[in-house]
Amino acid sequence: MNNPVITAFERSPDRGRGLARDMRVRWALEEAGRAYDVRLVSFEAMKQPAHLALHPFGQIPTYQEGELALFESGAIVLHIAERHGGLLPDDASARARAVGWVFAALSTVEPPIVERSMATLVERDRSWYEERLPILDERVRGRLEQLSRRLGDADWLDGAFSAGDLMMVTVLRRLEGAGILEGYPNLGAYIARGEARPAYRRAFEAQRAVFTAAAGG
Amino acid sequence: MNNPVITAFERSPDRGRGLARDMRVRWALEEAGRAYDVRLVSFEAMKQPAHLALHPFGQIPTYQEGELALFESGAIVLHIAERHGGLLPDDASARARAVGWVFAALSTVEPPIVERSMATLVERDRSWYEERLPILDERVRGRLEQLSRRLGDADWLDGAFSAGDLMMVTVLRRLEGAGILEGYPNLGAYIARGEARPAYRRAFEAQRAVFTAAAGG
Repeated sequence: MNNPVITAFERSPDRGRGLARDMRVRWALEEAGRAYDVRLVSFEAMKQPAHLALHPFGQIPTYQEGELALFESGAIVLHIAERHGGLLPDDASARARAVGWVFAALSTVEPPIVERSMATLVERDRSWYEERLPILDERVRGRLEQLSRRLGDADWLDGAFSAGDLMMVTVLRRLEGAGILEGYPNLGAYIARGEARPAYRRAFEAQRAVFTAAAGG
Repeated sequence: MNNPVITAFERSPDRGRGLARDMRVRWALEEAGRAYDVRLVSFEAMKQPAHLALHPFGQIPTYQEGELALFESGAIVLHIAERHGGLLPDDASARARAVGWVFAALSTVEPPIVERSMATLVERDRSWYEERLPILDERVRGRLEQLSRRLGDADWLDGAFSAGDLMMVTVLRRLEGAGILEGYPNLGAYIARGEARPAYRRAFEAQRAVFTAAAGG
């Protein structure tokens, strides 16, 4: 069986901090104990027909395994989770709830976080930036408050670690440096628990090596 | 077997246009030929502990079936699709790709559409509204352009109608009245194909009846 091939940024804008979406797929593959190959793509190549045939929205990651080509980190993580142990519970109801947390991370928690990040990147010089940022912060806090209450003092969102936790931890990590997570100590501890997993460490080091190599170090 | 119970807005802000997220679940249940019951919730009740126990982010829809309680429209639609015919292909690869389109609709296409809608609702009186709206329109157009190219002159996104199309059509419908979809005739025809399905019609009429009853008509 050939290794699946994923794509990742040739030069990640996060400078090796593991915030790009390939990190989710790398982590899932490491949890599943599945070896994989990585093909790096430049920002120019991502907009070319060859990459758009794999990913119609011109992003990373993509996933190729034999004849199967997938895009969307959520779908790729779920595909891996369904075919290997360690990322979804065996019980059908617990499994459906874990899938629910994958969607919650991507459709409910991530959008206000991405909206805030986008504003700090592309609206910083706009006249309205200073006035609008607190509104965006508040939207993020609203979600974190609800998530923090649900998590309480549990280790993971619903029983054992699952693909839902994997996705939620990677989504929350996008707030690094924003000064918002600090208000939710249980979420900080939750992220740290994710980051302490051996599979996470291996995935993190692998994506960091790409940055280090590109930086010539 | 008791009917599953879903929640929907007691008074939907869309005035019966079927833009709220319960429409996705109703449509999936109709495609699956599964009878269901609806429990209506008020905006006040959605923020109370009883509802938050079902949906930690205080939204609709939720889905209860025996002991199983789910939230997130994507997870609910996928749960229904996995247990009934008509929403996912039998072939494993085609199935994974259809799930990919569910995620693409929710994580890639919907966020800029929701961000634009939110701005028209809550930023209309802000000093920056006129200057910022074209930026938001452009982000939505970028996604529609890519989606339109991928769809081409096909009926559905990947072979036969699937849960991916169901989700994408409901996401695109949120642009109704924005004057943006008109630039992409193949997407307009795609939405119309979705809306013409008997299961869609039944779901639409059922949600519309809630609005009509609340309006005393």
